[in-house]
Amino acid sequence: MNQEVNQEFINQLEAAIETGSFEKSAKEVNELHPADIAEVLDGLSLDSAKALLEHIDEEKGADALIGLDEDLRSKILEDYSGKEIAEELVENLDSDDAADLINELDHAKRREVLDSITDREQAQDIANLLVYPDNTAGALMGAELVKVNQNWRVMQCVKEMRRQAEEIEHVHSVYVVDDENRLLGTLSLKKLLTTSTKTPIAEVYSQQVHFVEATQSGEDAARIMDKYDLVAMPVVNGMGQLVGRITIDDVVDFMREEAKEDYNLASGLVEDVESDDSIWTTTRARLPWLLIGLFGGLAAASVIGVYEEDLGNLPKLAFFIPLIAAMGGNVGVQSSAIIVQGLASNSDMGSLVSRLIKELGVGVLNGVICGLVIIGASLFLGYATDLALVVASSLILVIIVAALVGTFVPLFLNKYKIDPALATGPFITTTNDILGLFIYFIISRMLLGF
Amino acid sequence: MNQEVNQEFINQLEAAIETGSFEKSAKEVNELHPADIAEVLDGLSLDSAKALLEHIDEEKGADALIGLDEDLRSKILEDYSGKEIAEELVENLDSDDAADLINELDHAKRREVLDSITDREQAQDIANLLVYPDNTAGALMGAELVKVNQNWRVMQCVKEMRRQAEEIEHVHSVYVVDDENRLLGTLSLKKLLTTSTKTPIAEVYSQQVHFVEATQSGEDAARIMDKYDLVAMPVVNGMGQLVGRITIDDVVDFMREEAKEDYNLASGLVEDVESDDSIWTTTRARLPWLLIGLFGGLAAASVIGVYEEDLGNLPKLAFFIPLIAAMGGNVGVQSSAIIVQGLASNSDMGSLVSRLIKELGVGVLNGVICGLVIIGASLFLGYATDLALVVASSLILVIIVAALVGTFVPLFLNKYKIDPALATGPFITTTNDILGLFIYFIISRMLLGF
Repeated sequence: MNQEVNQEFINQLEAAIETGSFEKSAKEVNELHPADIAEVLDGLSLDSAKALLEHIDEEKGADALIGLDEDLRSKILEDYSGKEIAEELVENLDSDDAADLINELDHAKRREVLDSITDREQAQDIANLLVYPDNTAGALMGAELVKVNQNWRVMQCVKEMRRQAEEIEHVHSVYVVDDENRLLGTLSLKKLLTTSTKTPIAEVYSQQVHFVEATQSGEDAARIMDKYDLVAMPVVNGMGQLVGRITIDDVVDFMREEAKEDYNLASGLVEDVESDDSIWTTTRARLPWLLIGLFGGLAAASVIGVYEEDLGNLPKLAFFIPLIAAMGGNVGVQSSAIIVQGLASNSDMGSLVSRLIKELGVGVLNGVICGLVIIGASLFLGYATDLALVVASSLILVIIVAALVGTFVPLFLNKYKIDPALATGPFITTTNDILGLFIYFIISRMLLGF
Repeated sequence: MNQEVNQEFINQLEAAIETGSFEKSAKEVNELHPADIAEVLDGLSLDSAKALLEHIDEEKGADALIGLDEDLRSKILEDYSGKEIAEELVENLDSDDAADLINELDHAKRREVLDSITDREQAQDIANLLVYPDNTAGALMGAELVKVNQNWRVMQCVKEMRRQAEEIEHVHSVYVVDDENRLLGTLSLKKLLTTSTKTPIAEVYSQQVHFVEATQSGEDAARIMDKYDLVAMPVVNGMGQLVGRITIDDVVDFMREEAKEDYNLASGLVEDVESDDSIWTTTRARLPWLLIGLFGGLAAASVIGVYEEDLGNLPKLAFFIPLIAAMGGNVGVQSSAIIVQGLASNSDMGSLVSRLIKELGVGVLNGVICGLVIIGASLFLGYATDLALVVASSLILVIIVAALVGTFVPLFLNKYKIDPALATGPFITTTNDILGLFIYFIISRMLLGF
């Protein structure tokens, strides 16, 4: 059962499908887990994938589609009418997956799908989920859950649970609500198994329950579930009424996406790039930051242009331009990365002033060490003492300034609700390149007396 | 219940503890979730935290300690004898948490703790977990699980489960084993509730079970659990015998650590830095990469030194040094980031040659676009045509070379089982700085005819 899909299996399947032998293929694929079927679909040609989907279990096919990249899914869905999406896919999916899938369609088709769902209760559940904007707890939740009324007795409760559980794949928790559907607490299966069937629920449930409001951010939901090691968490509306639940698998996917986004921004990529994306997609993801770097480079050229005469007098000044620029960039990236991670994990950052003072300390310490190293190395390599002094003192100042900029910018962006991760990567590097060059040439003028 | 700990509460607590009023403080703290108690301990002074721990519930205190940073935990544990660690902490912890805690102690104390555990079965469980190296599935697993023999009947099974479940906080799954403890499958609670009590387990369990071998990597375990949306996964030894289970909360923590590590490497940080670490810790985490950048800068200075005469002839050549260096760095980081993420998510990377060819395509496309932009911009800014041509053609070549280097190095490291993330950040930037300068000056000699 732990055997996963390999390339050979996919090749054989592709060949079989092309010769039209669907029966055997479908049988083999039907035995796989939907996550593995998704891998198979991803490996097949688009036409074969579409053809295969028509011959396998509807439910497995629907779950497999949810496991695909959005790109591939939308290509496959092009051939489906709204009615087909409703009947073959949506009705086989959990409400949160169904809502995600419907969200990817254009408005007209979305309406068509919702109108075609035969189970009107499910249609209503999905429509309710569609109102929550991306990145909220509401957008992460599903409607499937088991809940009991506090006024019931254990007996009625078990009966109700069995009925509700039939429609739900995994029972994570049993939630207790009052007559107005307000969340009161949870009921443990252990308690249920060990209590007399006549006991009222109100006497046995636990009021200790962590929940999130649907309008809170997805990050909040992920943080709470991670902090308290929850496998599922109830979601309430502004009145405290139970409207859904978030399961850990959705939070894991969400966390992975968030981490990837930060990593991409730090690496100068503007879109989610997969290693198997086309040359054009990859270029589009990279070009924006490259152009920013390019104009930063032109600005740096203008800065140096101001000091052209100095370079004429002492061409050796140019030797250390890459060093100054690189060190400013590296320090800036380090500082901003610490801030971005601190903000992401919601840790206590202290006041802006105290952070800057601390960063000043780190900058001075790193700067002085690097400055001493550079003086030693320069003299050893035979550079003139006055040049070594210019480089060392510029370096100290550059490191301090870069550390302060790298700290200030993400905190500033965060204050104005802009993603602080934007400040990492090429942006901070370019800024510090330019500042560093100014510092270097100003100090060289002061010390060398041009 | 969703009220979390705030600074005011911690301040009041600190004041109360300092005046020796433990009773009220302990009562308030005992009502908190261990994760919140960990936050409280983190916010208090070290002495107050130690004092508080002696006055609250042992079990809550033990769980809270597990939620702390390793630094703080080891400071608190300094005051504990091996016997105290065993009796007050380890015996209140799940085996995986206990093993993690014991792993942080020095060898002598480790032995002392294991010898002092009164429940010898627990001591054996923990000792068994300690054999697995960091980063393996075995290191992530715990011994607490509910298992039943395939030869039992449903009735005996429910009885056994109740007995086993008493010692276990959460029952994630019921595993089915044979007489030799080999994993056969899982038993769903739903099935158990709906089947006659005399049915043999062999007839009702499901053979579909995803598992991992204890010696497989932690990444493998995380990938499988994520792929199949598992909340818990059984772990087997080389004989297929059930030795433990991994729960999703541990995988979430593991994934977060991995993502953080990659992000740190890409940002030039060698240690896990928290935003509230001391100046000295932060400096230590940053200095190594800064020194590498420094020596890279000195190497770049030597490269430029070779062309000192050219700079004397045309100081304007120096203007574009930062641009060439920055673009090489940015492109290299982008390329290596895509590879590192692709390797981490285990996606199909194709052959080395096909990747390099694709990267060549992306490089040429980005290079030509940037080259055209730079020619336009340079002429607009009034630079000489021949200089603009030198910069543009160097830029195209630098972008292509940097893309190839950024792709090749992480793939190469990965092939030799070195963490490919090492190739990101300052390393790739520095390499590309130096290569870029060579390209720039060689092309300028060729085109300008120095």
